[in-house]
Amino acid sequence: MNDRPKTPLLDRVTLPSDLKALSDTELRHLADELRSETISAVSTTGGHLGAGLGVVELTVALHAVFDTPRDKIIWDVGHQCYPHKILTGRRDRIRTLRMGGGLAGFTKRTESPYDPFGAGHSSTSISAALGFAMARELGGDPGDAIAVIGDGAMSAGMAYEALNNAGHEGKRLFVILNDNEMSIAPPVGAMSSYLTRLYAGGPFQELKAAAKGAVGLLPEAFQEGARRAKEMLKGMAVGGTLFEELGFSYIGPVDGHDMEQLLPLLRTVRARADGPVLIHVVTKKGKGYAPAEAALDRGHATGKFDVITGLQAKAKSNAPSYTAVFAKALIEEGARDDRILGVTAAMPDGTGLKQFAQRFPRRCFDVGIAEQHAVTFAAGLAAGGMKPFCAIYSTFLQRGYDQIVHDVAVQGLPVRFAIDRAGLVGQDGPTHSGAYDVAFLANLPGFVVMAAADEAELVHMVATAAAHDSGPIAFRFPRGEGTGVEMPERGQVLPIGKGRMIAEGKAVAILSFGTRLSEVMVAREALMARGITPTVADARFAKPLDRDLILTLARDHEALITIEEGAVGGFGSHVAQLLAEEGVFDSGLRFRSMVLPDMFVDHDAPRAMYDTSALNAQHIEAKVLSVLGIGSLDSRRADPA
Amino acid sequence: MNDRPKTPLLDRVTLPSDLKALSDTELRHLADELRSETISAVSTTGGHLGAGLGVVELTVALHAVFDTPRDKIIWDVGHQCYPHKILTGRRDRIRTLRMGGGLAGFTKRTESPYDPFGAGHSSTSISAALGFAMARELGGDPGDAIAVIGDGAMSAGMAYEALNNAGHEGKRLFVILNDNEMSIAPPVGAMSSYLTRLYAGGPFQELKAAAKGAVGLLPEAFQEGARRAKEMLKGMAVGGTLFEELGFSYIGPVDGHDMEQLLPLLRTVRARADGPVLIHVVTKKGKGYAPAEAALDRGHATGKFDVITGLQAKAKSNAPSYTAVFAKALIEEGARDDRILGVTAAMPDGTGLKQFAQRFPRRCFDVGIAEQHAVTFAAGLAAGGMKPFCAIYSTFLQRGYDQIVHDVAVQGLPVRFAIDRAGLVGQDGPTHSGAYDVAFLANLPGFVVMAAADEAELVHMVATAAAHDSGPIAFRFPRGEGTGVEMPERGQVLPIGKGRMIAEGKAVAILSFGTRLSEVMVAREALMARGITPTVADARFAKPLDRDLILTLARDHEALITIEEGAVGGFGSHVAQLLAEEGVFDSGLRFRSMVLPDMFVDHDAPRAMYDTSALNAQHIEAKVLSVLGIGSLDSRRADPA
Repeated sequence: MNDRPKTPLLDRVTLPSDLKALSDTELRHLADELRSETISAVSTTGGHLGAGLGVVELTVALHAVFDTPRDKIIWDVGHQCYPHKILTGRRDRIRTLRMGGGLAGFTKRTESPYDPFGAGHSSTSISAALGFAMARELGGDPGDAIAVIGDGAMSAGMAYEALNNAGHEGKRLFVILNDNEMSIAPPVGAMSSYLTRLYAGGPFQELKAAAKGAVGLLPEAFQEGARRAKEMLKGMAVGGTLFEELGFSYIGPVDGHDMEQLLPLLRTVRARADGPVLIHVVTKKGKGYAPAEAALDRGHATGKFDVITGLQAKAKSNAPSYTAVFAKALIEEGARDDRILGVTAAMPDGTGLKQFAQRFPRRCFDVGIAEQHAVTFAAGLAAGGMKPFCAIYSTFLQRGYDQIVHDVAVQGLPVRFAIDRAGLVGQDGPTHSGAYDVAFLANLPGFVVMAAADEAELVHMVATAAAHDSGPIAFRFPRGEGTGVEMPERGQVLPIGKGRMIAEGKAVAILSFGTRLSEVMVAREALMARGITPTVADARFAKPLDRDLILTLARDHEALITIEEGAVGGFGSHVAQLLAEEGVFDSGLRFRSMVLPDMFVDHDAPRAMYDTSALNAQHIEAKVLSVLGIGSLDSRRADPA
Repeated sequence: MNDRPKTPLLDRVTLPSDLKALSDTELRHLADELRSETISAVSTTGGHLGAGLGVVELTVALHAVFDTPRDKIIWDVGHQCYPHKILTGRRDRIRTLRMGGGLAGFTKRTESPYDPFGAGHSSTSISAALGFAMARELGGDPGDAIAVIGDGAMSAGMAYEALNNAGHEGKRLFVILNDNEMSIAPPVGAMSSYLTRLYAGGPFQELKAAAKGAVGLLPEAFQEGARRAKEMLKGMAVGGTLFEELGFSYIGPVDGHDMEQLLPLLRTVRARADGPVLIHVVTKKGKGYAPAEAALDRGHATGKFDVITGLQAKAKSNAPSYTAVFAKALIEEGARDDRILGVTAAMPDGTGLKQFAQRFPRRCFDVGIAEQHAVTFAAGLAAGGMKPFCAIYSTFLQRGYDQIVHDVAVQGLPVRFAIDRAGLVGQDGPTHSGAYDVAFLANLPGFVVMAAADEAELVHMVATAAAHDSGPIAFRFPRGEGTGVEMPERGQVLPIGKGRMIAEGKAVAILSFGTRLSEVMVAREALMARGITPTVADARFAKPLDRDLILTLARDHEALITIEEGAVGGFGSHVAQLLAEEGVFDSGLRFRSMVLPDMFVDHDAPRAMYDTSALNAQHIEAKVLSVLGIGSLDSRRADPA
């Protein structure tokens, strides 16, 4: 059990307005207490630690200088918002972070007026802040808009689109570039190198700040230093900054842990800015907590841990994670065919491609937080004769949707999509749900869309994708551990568009697409105790459908139930379309399609989220009973709160 | 009738390899002939004229210097590819451009080996070229990759993502920035101003070329000038270029109509480049054809025209276009509520927002080709208390899908989506089909999704969207003219989730979503002649569904047919899900859902495309007969070719 830290100053702060009464020295001490409280809270909940620790001083300084919630701080992604939550009336619930019914791990509009814009995905903050700024200019909500965005998030085109538009509009707007040289993995790309060059010329503490256009925005005391810095910069390789060329006043780099720099700087730009300003702040992810600073990922995300030692309570695992199984299978395929390549959008760890990259360094591409580019780049690789595996989480693949349609599907290029985190994902909540991929992929002509029922199936699907060279192919699998099935020696190439029978039965057939299959089998056991023996089949493919299997199941049973970890419009809808076109409904079929509910399911343990979604074994059992008219259990979905 | 121009040199060129035999002087003359031939061809077909005329010299120079198709020229968007098609073995079919069975209006892989990557949407070329380049480095297809991208396309984040990645990889790659200060509308944003500044300092003819890092890549004769230019630039406001900061060697700006600059420059960079090179070429859209040069849009797209006068044969119109109706309705709503704003992603003309901007200049935002930003910017505007109408074509809205899910739907923000070009669009073909929006929007919790059955309905839907402040709402409408219905004085706010009965009948009910309604009514007439009187209803809403209407139609008829201009997974799938959950199929219902077929429908007249898709009156008639078992007509879909 970790002791709670002593926080006499923080105890006096309920809302940011309480900061106005504190001196600069007190604010500095408050930041130290806020850091301790953040470490203490995350040690009991787990969650994103490093990002928050990196912005403790920035959080205090922003709330002390600006007038929140009238002024709007928009934290990009939201990983770094825990200290912000502690300062904005949520300290009493900070030890419920990411738990069912507790605080969200990201900013969330419904949680607090101090969260003007929710996040979860990267690189949205500048667009949102510009929206607030232009609304203000046109008579909407008053106040300043301040986007706080990491250097990793700057690799996304969306951030550039927003800068380009904001520079053009020319209205007052603050973008704080929090440069810690780390997003989840070290950021990649030329922009990242550029940012490093911006302060590689000399220690920023001496430069103070430097920008020809922005000198007037600096505190008096800094202006002489800035003028000198400008002179120095003239002779350096880095000339006018990229941000100035896009219409921003650029100030920086400044030390984001030095309140003596941050406070006067923010006070002055708040008083004087009349256009878009970019403040380049350099921070250290994990700052002030030795175990985080020492970690490779700077304490990016952690389980519960001991504050003194930094050691995490490791959950026991029964089976390898789907991600690990995918990584291993891809490496095995890659060893047999050197045209197999990996493409990741800044998630080498999360997708398992890191292992592939270690084995085949030249054959793996981390393109940055850039899903649009990732997909079309993969299409180019495929057109050039290679076999790219584009490994992107379901929720992030939404960013590359047009490229999937326009560059991959229309051209029929054999890009392989490995879709991790399909279905509900637990603590990250609704912003990260992998709910829509089947619906948005399965209606694309020429696509093959698969879902793995277990980790052995995943191995076969990697092999199937590797072998499928005639068009695009996707396979989805969930977050977390496999089911513990026996693993195959080697992946087998599955026949395209063919499902498999799992268990024979009668009266009712359950056709599963994906990992709900194990819940289906649990339900089957329970039903057999009641004298009902459902037939169970694994569809494997949402496209092309196994027509023979589906029509046979429909013909031989009174009832047919499909189940999937996705929203309506996906597998079940394609089955319904087939049944309708074939006239199967004409003479009656008790058909039901179990899908994710029409609600955003809040963060919780994954099993609890599937309970809320009525997709666990007891719901399947109830659905079977109800469809057979034996209903005693309630099969209806829980209503959204 | 326009006379064919005399083209003695061009007549000797069948393939680009024939250019190798020509002298530089002959190549210059060839460019003149190619320009004449392009004008002549487009005068008989209509199509995109200005973009092609702007790159005639560039097209000749690229094919003369590089070794296509081994070297891969990737034309961004593809509007400018007609001269390229003439030079690459397709001259004999150039007068079939954009006609059914004829040449596509964009590059297309299935059309020619000289089209290594198809296009249609903007800003994909650098990603694709980098894919080819990295494939080559890893043993895939050999040859150089050359992306030709306009300055307007540079406002898209995707282009930046690709530059960022290419600069990081550092491999040989050519990006030709074709800067004509025009995309479809004049480009907006800070990048555009930046590009202008790059050559505003002096006429580029004197500078020749200037780039500190790239001097070694220049032809000998240019190097002295470049060194001088570099000295000059030192003193100018524009310092190191943005592209160099992203890892590219920058050369330019050069005159894209001066073969004496283009040919030696391309020869030298081809011989010497060992990393990514950006060549900044300045051209004039519509160059060399006075009527195009004089037009506001520089002859961007045109109908058939008289070559001497430039006058277009204007098609007679019977009814206002849906776009014009939308624009007028939005202006009327905007006059009553100054919180109503317009957001367009570089399509002020196409979406009709130009008129709104003329009336309310401060309340309309053209954010550039930047759909991701457009959506989240609109979400920010909504969060700031405004009522943004985000007007984006169905096909381009795919680019903002994640932002729709993550920033709009999850947060329930009242962004209004005006989705033009829903359904099949005619000459632009499959890359521009608005096939997927219903499927990808209607399963998002809290969304309202409407489709207008005619132009009067569209007026009501604009009013409904303006009034709907409790969450996101979308309405879709097709390209082209309305049906000529009487127009309402003022838009009425429709009850959310309620459809309308159009015509009572019996035995079979047809539930239409969108503008297929008029075809349904034609089919109804034909069926009445056979003694069958279908009930017809207009669903208006795909979400929320009109449960009462649908269940009543199902209960009171033997058969229920839905029809929509969208792919499976949309309206019909949601109806099927409702019917299944309500147990309507249990005792039998002849249910069919008519949707777009599982194929990419090639460019053709819209009516012909709907014939291919089996969604015209005769197909509806046949479907009714077949579902009632009276089948004599073939209701099956045409097979893809």
